Amino acid sequence: MTTTTALDFARLLSTRAKIGYQPGMGVRSNRMVANPLFDFGAGRPDPGTFPYDGLVDATARMMKEEGDQALTYGDPLGYAGLRDLVVHKYDLFEGLKIERDNVIIANGSGAALALAFSAFVDVGDAIITEAPTFSGTLAAIRRHGARVLDAPVDAEGIDTAAVRRHLETLRREGTPCKLIYTIVNFQNPAGPTQSLRRRKELVALAQEFGTIILEDDAYGELRFEGEQLPSLYALDDAGCVVRSGTLSKILGAGVRLGWLAAPKEMIPVLQGFNFGGGVNPFMSRVAVYFMRDNLKPHVELLAKTYHQKRDAMLTGLWEVLGGTDVEISKPDGGFFIWIKLPTGTDPKKLAQLAAEQGIQYAQGPGFFPNGGGEQNIRLAYSYETVEKCYEGSKLVGQVIKQARA
Amino acid sequence: MTTTTALDFARLLSTRAKIGYQPGMGVRSNRMVANPLFDFGAGRPDPGTFPYDGLVDATARMMKEEGDQALTYGDPLGYAGLRDLVVHKYDLFEGLKIERDNVIIANGSGAALALAFSAFVDVGDAIITEAPTFSGTLAAIRRHGARVLDAPVDAEGIDTAAVRRHLETLRREGTPCKLIYTIVNFQNPAGPTQSLRRRKELVALAQEFGTIILEDDAYGELRFEGEQLPSLYALDDAGCVVRSGTLSKILGAGVRLGWLAAPKEMIPVLQGFNFGGGVNPFMSRVAVYFMRDNLKPHVELLAKTYHQKRDAMLTGLWEVLGGTDVEISKPDGGFFIWIKLPTGTDPKKLAQLAAEQGIQYAQGPGFFPNGGGEQNIRLAYSYETVEKCYEGSKLVGQVIKQARA
Repeated sequence: MTTTTALDFARLLSTRAKIGYQPGMGVRSNRMVANPLFDFGAGRPDPGTFPYDGLVDATARMMKEEGDQALTYGDPLGYAGLRDLVVHKYDLFEGLKIERDNVIIANGSGAALALAFSAFVDVGDAIITEAPTFSGTLAAIRRHGARVLDAPVDAEGIDTAAVRRHLETLRREGTPCKLIYTIVNFQNPAGPTQSLRRRKELVALAQEFGTIILEDDAYGELRFEGEQLPSLYALDDAGCVVRSGTLSKILGAGVRLGWLAAPKEMIPVLQGFNFGGGVNPFMSRVAVYFMRDNLKPHVELLAKTYHQKRDAMLTGLWEVLGGTDVEISKPDGGFFIWIKLPTGTDPKKLAQLAAEQGIQYAQGPGFFPNGGGEQNIRLAYSYETVEKCYEGSKLVGQVIKQARA
Repeated sequence: MTTTTALDFARLLSTRAKIGYQPGMGVRSNRMVANPLFDFGAGRPDPGTFPYDGLVDATARMMKEEGDQALTYGDPLGYAGLRDLVVHKYDLFEGLKIERDNVIIANGSGAALALAFSAFVDVGDAIITEAPTFSGTLAAIRRHGARVLDAPVDAEGIDTAAVRRHLETLRREGTPCKLIYTIVNFQNPAGPTQSLRRRKELVALAQEFGTIILEDDAYGELRFEGEQLPSLYALDDAGCVVRSGTLSKILGAGVRLGWLAAPKEMIPVLQGFNFGGGVNPFMSRVAVYFMRDNLKPHVELLAKTYHQKRDAMLTGLWEVLGGTDVEISKPDGGFFIWIKLPTGTDPKKLAQLAAEQGIQYAQGPGFFPNGGGEQNIRLAYSYETVEKCYEGSKLVGQVIKQARA
C-alpha cells in the first residue's frame, strides 16, 4: 500500500474560518492560570448559589409530567414554557410587556448574539461597538468578519456623539451600519450603567440612520444599587432593537439557555441560524420547572450575594491601592470591577506576578476591538467567596504595586 | 410625539439570511398535520424507550458529584466525559480507535454538521450530496448558500461514478469541491447501506481530489440486520473524513447532544463556530452518567424495538400494496422506509387524503437538492407503537390506492 498524503484542508476553509487561522493552532482559551487560587477571570456565577436540590427536584417533576416531550425534538424557537418565562421575567422585573412571539431561545446568550451576527453581518460589514466591550462577543464578531468602529464609554455609558460621527462617516461612504452592539447595565467590562439620556439618544440614532441596536443585558436583574432604567428595547417604537438575555447569571451558566427578544417579523430570520432540532428541550424544561416558582426570591438572593462580594473586593483593593492614582469602577450590579492600573504599572510583569500567586484575571486588551487597554484589567468578584474576594483583591493590589516600574 | 417609521431590516440582512427570505414569512415547519393520529413524519425516537427514571437518577447522582461543574461554563470542545463516551462508543460498537482530541461536541448532530458547513462553505461554493438525502441537512446546506451537485443512490449507496464525474467537472472548472456529504448506514431517506466497495471508492476519490467527506451516521448503532461495515472515517488514512454522530437516536433527541469526529488539526477550526460558553455542561453530564453504564444494553433494546416496528410497517404496507408496482425499501436499521409510489399516484391527492386520516409522513421533494421526488414518500416507523405502525401503514396503503388517478 502506498503512503497517502494528508489532506491540506486549509485551502478548503470558508472565508470566516480563515479569519485568524494558522496551521497547527490550538483551541482558544483565555486562562492564564491552570488551577487558580483566586479566580477573578471569567464571569462565572457563584457555585454557592446554585440550586442543586431544586434542580434535581425540578428534573423529577418535569420527567413525570412531560418527559416524553423533554426527550424528543423541540420547537425551533425553543420550549414555549421558557419563552413564556422570559415574557414573565421582563414583566416582573421591569414591567416590560412583550409576547412569546417576540422571543427565540438559543444555547446561551453567546449563541443568541451569534444568531444576530449571522443574520445581519457579512464579512467586511460595518458595525459599531463600545470600547471596551465584552471579549466573548468580540470573538464572535471577529469570526463573522465584521469591521468594527468603536465608541468610547464614559460614566454615562456609550458616547453617543461618537456613535453619531461613525454613522455619519458610514453614510458618506454609502456603507450601511449593520448594527450597534451595546451593554446597557453595568457595562462589561467598564462598569457604568447607560444613562436615560444616552439611551434615548442611542435609540433615536438607530431610528434616524435605519440600523439595529443589539442590546446585551446579561446582568440586568442583578442590580443592587442605583435606579433601574428602561431598556433600549422598551424605549424603541420602530423595531430597531434586538435584546439578548440569559439564565447563565441568574440560574447557572451550565444550563446554556439564552434568548433574543426581537420584533416578531425578525424571528424567522434569526431562527434560520438555529441549526438542528430545537434548543435543549430537556434542559429548558428543567430550568423552567425550577425558575417559574423561584425567580424573584432566587434573584434577590443573588443580588445580595454579589453586592457583598463587590464591596469586599472594593474594600480590599482600596486598602492596598489607596494613595495611588489607580481608577477602580464601582458598578451598580453585575459581576465585574474594571481597573485602570496606577501610572507606571508594567502589565506583563503584573501578569507574571499574578500567575505566581495563582490569581486569574482578565487582561484589558481582550476587551478592545481596535487596540488599547494595556493599562486595564478586569476582576470578576462573582465566583469566589466574600472572604476570598477580600483577601484576593488585597493580593491583587500588592502585585499591582510590585509591578510598577 | 411623531409616529416613527418601522425599520426596514430586510436591507440590513446578511447574504446567508437573504436566502429564501420573504417579508412576513413565518417560522419553518414541516408538519402537514397538527396532531397526527399516525406520526410517521420526522425521525422521532420511540418515547416508550426513554429511560425516564434512569435520567432522573443520573441527574441526582451527577449533581452530588459535580453539580458545580454542571452549572457553570464548560470546555469549548464539550464535556470531557462525553467526548470520552464517544471514544468508548466507537470502540465498543465498531472496534474503531479514536482519541478525545478527535471529538468536538455540538448541540445535536444538526448543529455539528452546521459547524462543518460554516468551516468549509462560503456562499456559492460547490459540494456534493446524495439525491435523495436528509432534508434537515439540506436546509442547513441551503442556509450556507452551497451549490449542490447531487449523485444518485442505488442499492449499494451513493453512485461513486457520478461523484467522480462531478469532481472531474469541478476540476475542469477550477472550482474546489468543498465536501461530499453522505449517509452511509440505512441512508436517510432511501434506505441502502453503502457497500464496502463504494466506501473504499468514495474515500479514494476524496483523497485523489483533495476534498473532505462529511460522513453522517446518526443511526449506525441501530442495526438489526446485515453486516456492519467499516466507516469511511476508519477507511481513510489521509485526514479526509469528518464524521457526525448523535445521542438523539440512542438516548433521546431532547438532550441535543451530537458531535463531530475529525482530524485533530481540524478541531480548533470547527470550534470557532461553536459560539458561547461550552456545549450543555449540565445535559452532557446527565447523559454520560446514564449512558456510561447502560450503553450496550440500552442500544440492544432499541435495535430490537425498531426491528419489530420496521417489520410491522413492511407487513402492513405489503398487505395492501402487494400487486401494485410500488417500491418499498427494507433498511437494515434506522428509522425510515422509503416508498416509490405506484404508477399513477397523485402526490397532492395523497397528501390530502393522508391528512384527512391524520397521517403525517414526509413528502419526497424535500429530500432532493435539485428537484425530483414527487413520486416518493418517507415513513418513519420509529415513533409510533408496533401496533400503530401496522395499522397506520395499512391505512397509508389504502390512501395510496385511493390517490391513484
